[in-house]
Amino acid sequence: MTDLSFRKATRADLPAIVAMLADDPLGAAREEFADPLPAVYLEAFAALERDPNQFLAIVEAGGQIVGTLQLSFIPGLSRRGAWRGLIESVRIASSFRGQRIGEQMIRWAIAQCRERGCKLVQLTTDKSRVDAHRFYDRLGFTASHIGYKLDLA
Amino acid sequence: MTDLSFRKATRADLPAIVAMLADDPLGAAREEFADPLPAVYLEAFAALERDPNQFLAIVEAGGQIVGTLQLSFIPGLSRRGAWRGLIESVRIASSFRGQRIGEQMIRWAIAQCRERGCKLVQLTTDKSRVDAHRFYDRLGFTASHIGYKLDLA
Repeated sequence: MTDLSFRKATRADLPAIVAMLADDPLGAAREEFADPLPAVYLEAFAALERDPNQFLAIVEAGGQIVGTLQLSFIPGLSRRGAWRGLIESVRIASSFRGQRIGEQMIRWAIAQCRERGCKLVQLTTDKSRVDAHRFYDRLGFTASHIGYKLDLA
Repeated sequence: MTDLSFRKATRADLPAIVAMLADDPLGAAREEFADPLPAVYLEAFAALERDPNQFLAIVEAGGQIVGTLQLSFIPGLSRRGAWRGLIESVRIASSFRGQRIGEQMIRWAIAQCRERGCKLVQLTTDKSRVDAHRFYDRLGFTASHIGYKLDLA
């Protein structure tokens, strides 16, 4: 198993993260990976930094960036006042796919949610990501919900 | 159409909100509506109050509380640094159901997300809530995702 390390992303990681977001069947059309990086990404990173309930993670193996994911810790009244952890924007660099890195990343994310006192971890995946569905089933998630999106752009 | 007003919930609204959360096929088993209200709800409300990206809404008609929902505004890098609005814990008091109040509530929530600059509104509903699926389809949402949950309790 590849030995991974996890840390909070810094501004210097942004090009690598956006490259991974864009290097994806759905992300390719949604992102704009250019040099210099479009200002919208810098503004988004600043908003993430300001919010103590957001954690943008960088995953490294042997000093190289191999993955990223975003964790959001969300307070709420439902389920006896349960905090929930939301996992978004999971990506693994293309040259590191197929090494079960994703599994370690999600297990790490779940552990972070536990540490923050969350009673529930949730995420949605596009219906077209069939491999992802098998993956989350295998990790113990229940496909109990339908995920609705409304594009305001 | 019932004339609704929307405001941020206060601590005094908590019993009414928890009563609505519990008065629901799924919520009945998950919540603990008692007098005095269990401390977990007060702690959860304090966490919501501390977080400027959370908005717990109270919906009123003619001075009576008729509904509640929670909005979470989530920054992120994906989709060119798009903020997303997450709608959770939508409830309408049982005596006010069937009056299209839910539709007005979701339209209000969408407008709030726009005002906060969100590019996307998202929510998940349990697969068993068949009426809710028709409802969100009708409001323009796309059932594009599968919602996974992992219970840590």
